[in-house]
Amino acid sequence: MPHIALPDLPGIRGPMAFRPETARPLNDLVDVLLRGPSSLTPGERELIATFVSAENDCRYCQTIHGAVAAHHLGGNEDLVVQVKNDPQRAAISDKLKALLVIAGKTAESGTLVTAADVERARQLGATDVEIHDTVLIAAVFCMCNRYVDGLATWAPDDPAFYRQRAALVAENGYAASTLTGPTT
Amino acid sequence: MPHIALPDLPGIRGPMAFRPETARPLNDLVDVLLRGPSSLTPGERELIATFVSAENDCRYCQTIHGAVAAHHLGGNEDLVVQVKNDPQRAAISDKLKALLVIAGKTAESGTLVTAADVERARQLGATDVEIHDTVLIAAVFCMCNRYVDGLATWAPDDPAFYRQRAALVAENGYAASTLTGPTT
Repeated sequence: MPHIALPDLPGIRGPMAFRPETARPLNDLVDVLLRGPSSLTPGERELIATFVSAENDCRYCQTIHGAVAAHHLGGNEDLVVQVKNDPQRAAISDKLKALLVIAGKTAESGTLVTAADVERARQLGATDVEIHDTVLIAAVFCMCNRYVDGLATWAPDDPAFYRQRAALVAENGYAASTLTGPTT
Repeated sequence: MPHIALPDLPGIRGPMAFRPETARPLNDLVDVLLRGPSSLTPGERELIATFVSAENDCRYCQTIHGAVAAHHLGGNEDLVVQVKNDPQRAAISDKLKALLVIAGKTAESGTLVTAADVERARQLGATDVEIHDTVLIAAVFCMCNRYVDGLATWAPDDPAFYRQRAALVAENGYAASTLTGPTT
């Protein structure tokens, strides 16, 4: 049961409906970062969000963003599992593997990211904007994970919920989907 | 030296100037949360932000938000030091002490916040919105701290810089101050 009296919506959607003033810029931020113009694909960016949420052990966030990632990746749920469990052996590009190292360190503490980590990503083709966005995606999900778990929100068990919701989000974006769609 | 080629501005302002698309919703979020209508004073909210940034050992964030807190608290820099070092013995309300317990746990992991922590804050007068905002402020600063440190931004040494900048932010807000004011 959530720690405070939230609208009965799963995960981050409960506190977002409770406090629309903060939900608006939060959704705008996530839409720009995960869906705006970028040389990283939406699938790659959702994989970074999923990986960080798994590192932080946030069930709602890793499951919904894993489902959105899989949706963008042609339904490849197995790849999402690979990235969560062992990203350095997953069937992803070497550049994305290097970015996931930066994301994982950022999630623990920004001070752990080294010049060598960044240089390695750059040698594998990462641009400064991609490195920036990787750090910010990791940081944003450290926020979302704590927001979701710090208020003890609930998360559905049924994988079908996340697949259905992921299709809606992938189609319409986060801001547009916040107050719409199935709740269970 | 920052890990990527950022505009030469201190702390979070470098990456914000580098990527205005994400800076806009970030500033909107912080303005709503720290300066919007609330039964917590701006000084109390800045103390929560400062405490979390100190727990995360982010020099830029704890110093600038500590300076903004002190500005709102009539220049009481000693109180800011007390809250950073030992909040449970600081000269603040029992309600704020209870909220800082929730903030500190959220910063470590949202799952550490217990129903008893929340019940205690409530018994000391905290409302559901105040508890929500405390969790979100802690979560937001876990993001900002990682963003600032994950890109290895620089932070000025001179306390006068932070006092001057704090006055500007306290007067005009974060969004309005992002691209203005002294840089060193």
